[in-house]
Amino acid sequence: MIAAMEQSELQTLISSRRQGWSMPQPFYTDPAIHLVDVQRIFRRHWIFVGHSCQIKEPGEFFTVAIGEDSLILIRGDDDQVRALHNVCRHRGTLISRQECGTARRLVCPYHQWSYERDGRLASCRGMHEEIDRESLGLLPVHIEDLEGMLFVCLADTPPDFTPARQAMSPVLQPQRMGEAKVAKIVDYDVAANWKLVWENNRECYHCNVNHPQYTKANFDHFNSDDTTARIQGRIDAATERHMVQCEKHGFEVTHRDTGMANFPDQGQWFSANRTTLVDGYVSETMDGQQVAPLMGDYTEADVGTMRCRTVPNMWNHSSCDHVVSTRLLPTGPNRTQVRVIWLVHPDAEEGRDYHLDKLMPFWQLTSEQDWELCEFAQTGISSSAYRPGPYSTHKEYNVDAFVRWYLDAVAQ
Amino acid sequence: MIAAMEQSELQTLISSRRQGWSMPQPFYTDPAIHLVDVQRIFRRHWIFVGHSCQIKEPGEFFTVAIGEDSLILIRGDDDQVRALHNVCRHRGTLISRQECGTARRLVCPYHQWSYERDGRLASCRGMHEEIDRESLGLLPVHIEDLEGMLFVCLADTPPDFTPARQAMSPVLQPQRMGEAKVAKIVDYDVAANWKLVWENNRECYHCNVNHPQYTKANFDHFNSDDTTARIQGRIDAATERHMVQCEKHGFEVTHRDTGMANFPDQGQWFSANRTTLVDGYVSETMDGQQVAPLMGDYTEADVGTMRCRTVPNMWNHSSCDHVVSTRLLPTGPNRTQVRVIWLVHPDAEEGRDYHLDKLMPFWQLTSEQDWELCEFAQTGISSSAYRPGPYSTHKEYNVDAFVRWYLDAVAQ
Amino acid sequence: MIAAMEQSELQTLISSRRQGWSMPQPFYTDPAIHLVDVQRIFRRHWIFVGHSCQIKEPGEFFTVAIGEDSLILIRGDDDQVRALHNVCRHRGTLISRQECGTARRLVCPYHQWSYERDGRLASCRGMHEEIDRESLGLLPVHIEDLEGMLFVCLADTPPDFTPARQAMSPVLQPQRMGEAKVAKIVDYDVAANWKLVWENNRECYHCNVNHPQYTKANFDHFNSDDTTARIQGRIDAATERHMVQCEKHGFEVTHRDTGMANFPDQGQWFSANRTTLVDGYVSETMDGQQVAPLMGDYTEADVGTMRCRTVPNMWNHSSCDHVVSTRLLPTGPNRTQVRVIWLVHPDAEEGRDYHLDKLMPFWQLTSEQDWELCEFAQTGISSSAYRPGPYSTHKEYNVDAFVRWYLDAVAQ
Repeated sequence: MIAAMEQSELQTLISSRRQGWSMPQPFYTDPAIHLVDVQRIFRRHWIFVGHSCQIKEPGEFFTVAIGEDSLILIRGDDDQVRALHNVCRHRGTLISRQECGTARRLVCPYHQWSYERDGRLASCRGMHEEIDRESLGLLPVHIEDLEGMLFVCLADTPPDFTPARQAMSPVLQPQRMGEAKVAKIVDYDVAANWKLVWENNRECYHCNVNHPQYTKANFDHFNSDDTTARIQGRIDAATERHMVQCEKHGFEVTHRDTGMANFPDQGQWFSANRTTLVDGYVSETMDGQQVAPLMGDYTEADVGTMRCRTVPNMWNHSSCDHVVSTRLLPTGPNRTQVRVIWLVHPDAEEGRDYHLDKLMPFWQLTSEQDWELCEFAQTGISSSAYRPGPYSTHKEYNVDAFVRWYLDAVAQ
Repeated sequence: MIAAMEQSELQTLISSRRQGWSMPQPFYTDPAIHLVDVQRIFRRHWIFVGHSCQIKEPGEFFTVAIGEDSLILIRGDDDQVRALHNVCRHRGTLISRQECGTARRLVCPYHQWSYERDGRLASCRGMHEEIDRESLGLLPVHIEDLEGMLFVCLADTPPDFTPARQAMSPVLQPQRMGEAKVAKIVDYDVAANWKLVWENNRECYHCNVNHPQYTKANFDHFNSDDTTARIQGRIDAATERHMVQCEKHGFEVTHRDTGMANFPDQGQWFSANRTTLVDGYVSETMDGQQVAPLMGDYTEADVGTMRCRTVPNMWNHSSCDHVVSTRLLPTGPNRTQVRVIWLVHPDAEEGRDYHLDKLMPFWQLTSEQDWELCEFAQTGISSSAYRPGPYSTHKEYNVDAFVRWYLDAVAQ
Repeated sequence: MIAAMEQSELQTLISSRRQGWSMPQPFYTDPAIHLVDVQRIFRRHWIFVGHSCQIKEPGEFFTVAIGEDSLILIRGDDDQVRALHNVCRHRGTLISRQECGTARRLVCPYHQWSYERDGRLASCRGMHEEIDRESLGLLPVHIEDLEGMLFVCLADTPPDFTPARQAMSPVLQPQRMGEAKVAKIVDYDVAANWKLVWENNRECYHCNVNHPQYTKANFDHFNSDDTTARIQGRIDAATERHMVQCEKHGFEVTHRDTGMANFPDQGQWFSANRTTLVDGYVSETMDGQQVAPLMGDYTEADVGTMRCRTVPNMWNHSSCDHVVSTRLLPTGPNRTQVRVIWLVHPDAEEGRDYHLDKLMPFWQLTSEQDWELCEFAQTGISSSAYRPGPYSTHKEYNVDAFVRWYLDAVAQ
């Protein structure tokens, strides 16, 4: 059986990384590092699993697999969302293989042990009296609901969630994701290490040629080296307009500079901000026009975009009329399951208030363009000829920040 | 290359099992345990491979793979069935990739080395004279024919077969499987460890909800906890009737109690018995009616069922008119090849004397229901949240007995 | 991660081989030996990758994967063919996933780092000034062009190519492969260790039954044990005729004896010779007739065949009118990617001067017959019942020679 890497070997590998350059090959290809990542990142940190609006009524649930662990996210009779291991306490059988559904009780298909929506063992007909029913409930997993975004942590003692909530809640709140409606979920199986997917997300150096849709709507692909006076003028004007709008609506403005928001910043695993779009764009859509009813607290379309991200596995772009969340789950050293979720206003009706062919293309195209680049990167890095290369200080500071965050996290 | 587990590590793992509870995770998921199972179970014990009636004439053969080893079961000119390694002694080429067939000689497709039906090298045209032809026959494998059931053993010195023959022959004999005819063979690739398939077979706790066909025909899904006085009355009446029938025909009756026959019992790896069916059932078919001509020594239909099983890989249910054998072969820690074989009277003609759509559904449905449950179990047990759970003393005593047999067997 | 075998363990395994018998099982099945083969054979020796006529014009390229390493073979503006690692020096991205094409520059799809056709970094827009552009060209790989056959070596210090050039050039030259035209390329994924494919190629013991096309055209399937006086008469007559032809055209004759050319011979990794065909055959085609215009320096069809081969991965049969090259690349312990390439005269036009259904069948059939035998061998050798067997001294002397070459090569 493949074992995780020894601490000493891992430390040597970490130390071998040259500052400001990409990481040595094993971080992207070695099955032993994959196990380190699962154990030290995905079983210790807060992992985004989905939106609370996917399960609005008591008994509604969805399942998610983190490594070999299947979890059930289920809303209880007390309206609380809980995360439970999807594993019967009798002989370990998977309880639900459905992606989502509604359950009065969670009933194991094998011998019909039944669990309440909060995980307590409700019945185990056929067992002898002596067993301790109290101790045989479904194993719970730590969970936090952040403005409708659900995070779980598999660690016994999870990191304090409070700083994330304090920093992000005010920025996320106006979007009212907790009350939203799922418009679409698309799953991808990307043949690349999850860190390559993150690194791809952390720079817009690759945007000009690869993301025609994204670059038309945004300024943040410009950086210190290519922001001409004329472009800076456009950015300043748009930011000025945006700040007036934010002030009018009472939104915090947290991103004013050229380039992408710094993240991960100061070792923080979370960040959220509101960013302007280019003139003429009120939504991240193909032509910049609004494609669904205004969401949450918004009373007009021109509010820029709300963006947030949490390492190791989530980023989100929210326009006035829709939300797009991206979730990463590693399934191997060179494999990542990526889920993209589109949300709209709870009362919006498909075909009447929004059309998927208007709502989805902007982020569907941008996402799929990225997955292909990540797969190219994975293949090349697997070569014996791969040598770490230099990150652009103009354009890849966030990739470097991610790598530093990651190496710190696995070193512990 | 993955190595089998060290003895000390294995002992620690065995010792960690709590009496009466399911086994720790590695027994169901670890590739190193899979190798232990192949080496200590499937290469040491008697393995059921098929029925002698699959190869009735000299030269008829079928092949079977146990792990990486392909074997040929072939009937010789002396009418004896032999098991030979399906590997040419010249350069190791696989001799036959057919599932079954008839061969005058076994001829290697590569350089046409030819072997007699008993394995002796017959010709090797093109070789120099000096080679020792005597020593270059196909390697033989130990084989036993038990009333038409073929068992092989890959060990140099196999366990004594005599006790199995003595105990089982009298029970099996009236069925005359050696003279039967194959009606159908179906192969399944089940995504579960072979021990989960056995555990599933060793209890009827899961029958009520999952096996509507089986429970209509049988009493043995009832146990000490749910056998009401009314049910006990029905069982007693049926058993009474059954015993009269057995006495009349001179069959041994070996199962009289409620619940399933105890097995493995006292560490024995084999057992056989005759069991009553519910009133109105003379065969394990959808409606309990006879669906093919009476087999063997039977002169009337109402003889209950003959059942036998041998760990690690066979169970068999035989009604008055047909036989169903199930064979397990592990192909990985989470993979089992399962073959189900239906036999009928040698003179029965399909379409005239029996129809597959009447003969097969009872055990085909019951089998496929089980494979799905086993796959649920495998998936759940692979979770880090899997914890061994308690076996019901009412209903899972045979699962516990199987686990004890298995742990003893691999400990050696 | 699977590691290559320890030197001591490897030496023990090598020593355990009985002279004149096939190799022990691990050489054909063990993932650790596969890594040894990649490291000590495929990363140290000269590897045939293709023909220079696949890329005739500056900027034309093709790619090839040796293990995890993707290489680009590209013709430069100076008309030289170079081999470059297909891996961007920025963040390791695969530059081209095309099998072949034409490029003004090699541009990484990720951030558009651009490389000249000779590998030098041409531009990396967006990077800070401080990086050392000189040192960030595509990593080069040693390459040799032998009469239009391209060989690469991944070692830092490759073996001297001079002896191969001196021995083979005169024999290859008349064929003018460097100026030829690709008629067809077919790729196969063969489920067998690459050494089994070589062993298959090194004897014609298997030809009589398996290769009806080949044996009709050739004498070399006859050996000392089965060359009757009548056959020897035919061989002598054909050889006599052939030598006259060779003398007339000034070709070296290097194979006069019955049986296959000795190879590997005296530890040499290369050899080339000219061999007669049977009377009535002027080309290795289904009926022996010429199927395409005469190639190279040939002025008449009756010139026998030119053949060459280099361990570890190439053999070639060239008739007066076409060339067939076979290239092996191991992709796992039991997997080999095989490419077969057909070349014709540069001015020959498909449909007018040649037809693929006349050109290809002889070697396509013979090749596919062999791949099936290799897969049979792989399956049988994977059995625990595999025992090394004796090579025929009459017919398998070259298999033995190959095994000795191989064991010497990996021992170092």
